[in-house]
Amino acid sequence: MKNLLSILSAVAALIAPDLARAQDTVTVFGVVDVGLARLTGSSASVNGVSTGGANISRLGFRGTEDMGGGLKAGFWLEAGMDVDAGAGKATGSALNFNRRSTVSVMGAFGEVRLGRDDAATFLSTLIFDPFLTNGVGGTMAFVMRTGAPLIQISNAVSYFLPASLGGFYGQVQHAFGEQLSGTANSSQGNYNGLRFGYRAGPLNAAFATGKLKGATSAADISLNNLGLSYDLGVVRPILLWATEKQGATKVSALQLGVVAPIGTGQLRAQYSRFNTNNSAVDWTKLAIGYGYDLSKRTALYGTVARVSNSSGAAKSIGVQGLAAPGTALGSSSSGYEVGIRHTF
Amino acid sequence: MKNLLSILSAVAALIAPDLARAQDTVTVFGVVDVGLARLTGSSASVNGVSTGGANISRLGFRGTEDMGGGLKAGFWLEAGMDVDAGAGKATGSALNFNRRSTVSVMGAFGEVRLGRDDAATFLSTLIFDPFLTNGVGGTMAFVMRTGAPLIQISNAVSYFLPASLGGFYGQVQHAFGEQLSGTANSSQGNYNGLRFGYRAGPLNAAFATGKLKGATSAADISLNNLGLSYDLGVVRPILLWATEKQGATKVSALQLGVVAPIGTGQLRAQYSRFNTNNSAVDWTKLAIGYGYDLSKRTALYGTVARVSNSSGAAKSIGVQGLAAPGTALGSSSSGYEVGIRHTF
Amino acid sequence: MKNLLSILSAVAALIAPDLARAQDTVTVFGVVDVGLARLTGSSASVNGVSTGGANISRLGFRGTEDMGGGLKAGFWLEAGMDVDAGAGKATGSALNFNRRSTVSVMGAFGEVRLGRDDAATFLSTLIFDPFLTNGVGGTMAFVMRTGAPLIQISNAVSYFLPASLGGFYGQVQHAFGEQLSGTANSSQGNYNGLRFGYRAGPLNAAFATGKLKGATSAADISLNNLGLSYDLGVVRPILLWATEKQGATKVSALQLGVVAPIGTGQLRAQYSRFNTNNSAVDWTKLAIGYGYDLSKRTALYGTVARVSNSSGAAKSIGVQGLAAPGTALGSSSSGYEVGIRHTF
Repeated sequence: MKNLLSILSAVAALIAPDLARAQDTVTVFGVVDVGLARLTGSSASVNGVSTGGANISRLGFRGTEDMGGGLKAGFWLEAGMDVDAGAGKATGSALNFNRRSTVSVMGAFGEVRLGRDDAATFLSTLIFDPFLTNGVGGTMAFVMRTGAPLIQISNAVSYFLPASLGGFYGQVQHAFGEQLSGTANSSQGNYNGLRFGYRAGPLNAAFATGKLKGATSAADISLNNLGLSYDLGVVRPILLWATEKQGATKVSALQLGVVAPIGTGQLRAQYSRFNTNNSAVDWTKLAIGYGYDLSKRTALYGTVARVSNSSGAAKSIGVQGLAAPGTALGSSSSGYEVGIRHTF
Repeated sequence: MKNLLSILSAVAALIAPDLARAQDTVTVFGVVDVGLARLTGSSASVNGVSTGGANISRLGFRGTEDMGGGLKAGFWLEAGMDVDAGAGKATGSALNFNRRSTVSVMGAFGEVRLGRDDAATFLSTLIFDPFLTNGVGGTMAFVMRTGAPLIQISNAVSYFLPASLGGFYGQVQHAFGEQLSGTANSSQGNYNGLRFGYRAGPLNAAFATGKLKGATSAADISLNNLGLSYDLGVVRPILLWATEKQGATKVSALQLGVVAPIGTGQLRAQYSRFNTNNSAVDWTKLAIGYGYDLSKRTALYGTVARVSNSSGAAKSIGVQGLAAPGTALGSSSSGYEVGIRHTF
Repeated sequence: MKNLLSILSAVAALIAPDLARAQDTVTVFGVVDVGLARLTGSSASVNGVSTGGANISRLGFRGTEDMGGGLKAGFWLEAGMDVDAGAGKATGSALNFNRRSTVSVMGAFGEVRLGRDDAATFLSTLIFDPFLTNGVGGTMAFVMRTGAPLIQISNAVSYFLPASLGGFYGQVQHAFGEQLSGTANSSQGNYNGLRFGYRAGPLNAAFATGKLKGATSAADISLNNLGLSYDLGVVRPILLWATEKQGATKVSALQLGVVAPIGTGQLRAQYSRFNTNNSAVDWTKLAIGYGYDLSKRTALYGTVARVSNSSGAAKSIGVQGLAAPGTALGSSSSGYEVGIRHTF
């Protein structure tokens, strides 16, 4: 009996440090999502292999450390991938932690997070999109303006509310543009963001606002969005209103999405209307898709989407890993995609 | 007794989820292979540190998921490395999954694989080479033409036969060039490959054929190869015949290789003859090497090789991580390499 | 009893292979270190998010294999990171194993190591610096010259003495410049380094010397350094003398540092004096910092430093992840940094 116990404890001792290391130190995680896609523009189409149609393909390393006294430290390194080409976030590029690269201290007070992370205003456009911004069906509410979209931002400091506030959640975020003092545009690149929401039972609602400073105040970019979803069981309707304003240009989006569990999967659909302050430059997007869960970690999906432009607009449907054919002013663009998404 | 059992099962419960995660989710694997090499050309030589002399240095992440019903899903991300310089696949570059970046569904029907992968026609040149295409001794049967060799290919869809066909194996592969419709060369970059073989007991034989579409049909590249090996116990002779044709240019290879277990290691040797349809542009390669297994995962190796060119050819022996000195027309080139290969 | 034993051994068998793999094959490790920094030059300042203030941020993969007979093989792949920007070793770049990328054979004889590694002469400047070369306080003894500092070097072969020599340790290192023979500067890029030390009880002392060959002998870079530290318990004083010479230019450093355990942390301070053979081009650096251990793997730190230039010098304090404002000749530069360092 005693022998057995000593064997047992020897076995346990042998295991314990490694379990500790495996559990507490580093988790390797990711998504590999590859599909076949067809994009049609006004005069040409293209067929090919796409990536990230249901979830952005990624490889990451993360972990937390229990520091005692209710405090935790954590890190998160996450790189986007173009799996169809074996590349980093863009075709031909290499692996870097463009999606997230942060260190955190967490406790009853919430979380302080430093590094490169999602911009606060981007997060709501993702959360209130049935397609999570991905694939041919993904929302255009974060790529409305001409110019680089504000998705992740470097040199950021964020504070997140704790999970214990009875459903209230939120975040304030400041990112440094890191310009020299005394120069004319010393605040260029600074970003301030605020996100605040309430999630309880079937309801989720959030408001976010942010400003990215430009070289001049006319180049400042202001972003606002408001999301709302309510799970009725048979269907979860989602509403998103979002605006982006830079100088005299203002674009706004109004989206109505639905997610409905059907069989071992999910139907997703969304109608979006995009308006600029130039009445000729408007467009709409209609997307419908189905995701079928093969297992806990693997799903098949299919999505169809169409963008219709008014006379002054020329928006196209794109997908990661495949160059989109152009769309002429006032023309329309379609996207078709079937794929497989595997998480690890 | 009961107490012990409960302790045991507690220990087992503690372990079980992590074993599951470690086994089923992500395996980090790789090869670190570094050597000292000397390359001599017609008028100069170079000494230095090489990499991948016995197996291409790589770092990878892979895993499978049992989805039930005989189905599995899997992913494979594998990046080449120049260990001598701490770089990605080429000196000065960074990590990307250039070697393989795929998602698969596997079952009794075989495997469907999507993403970037070895080209079907390349695989046989590797399998039927005693040097596995690596180091100073590696086959030149996939780098016969002037122009980029066809090793891995992006945007590919492959179907592999299951392992249950009594020794028959094979693969069909289509890779998309992803050109716009309606353009003159809309099929440019499309690749179709087929590989079919039989492996049973001491015998392995395979045939592969493929075509990479160019901007015009004269730029199409056609590849064919036929490999045969037979394990006699004391020695395994290997035969490879391969051709590459682009427009009026045709190159063919005929190789006779041997692998012989000697002591705790392997003798590898190969004679190759390369002929073009221009009778002045031919060359031969002779290579001999020995790999000594220090342990299950670590081996030392040494290889010597020589290329002899006919009057119109100027082929050189190269090695990863070391720039080769040039070879004049009709001259010869030699390579010497000793190294260590460690797998993990 | 027998049943229990068989259950036990079944459990052990279940665990054993995975423990073996987890322990012996690959350890994923790293440092994520992010801070807030302020750098001031002669006419401007900059605030922002820095990285590596206490330890260079990194992600690595390493492992060893017990080959029996007292021999081990091992590999080490380590990439620097700019966590503030989610990038590789420099802003905008991607992941590559720039810090270390090696394969080793180890035994009673010591270690033979091949690949990219720290230069022997750099190591002592790190070991005898209270700030380990990092952040605003880090030594400038390896970046004294104008021109690229010699930190890591590719294509290196090193031999390290074993740990069993009663406190003596050391290393000889040769790195290949990999130039073609017969050219005017065929030895360009070759590096030879030697490091030899003694560490016992409270004492650590080391000498290192190295030469990097240039295109001409006037471009050769000669490096020498001598470090000494003695742990008095309440404080560990550290002395470093270092020189770099290229052609007619010679720079030398004399540093006095201290590390003192105070509370759950460490006080670090250092005074450094840098002299060139041009009497107008001298500078001094004063740095003081405190690191507070929140837990085994996580620490907070704060550092303040100042460089004062003589009339012909214009050295600045820099920090990874933040572009430093310039410093005018004869002016001074300051750096302030608080941050968090988390290891995994």
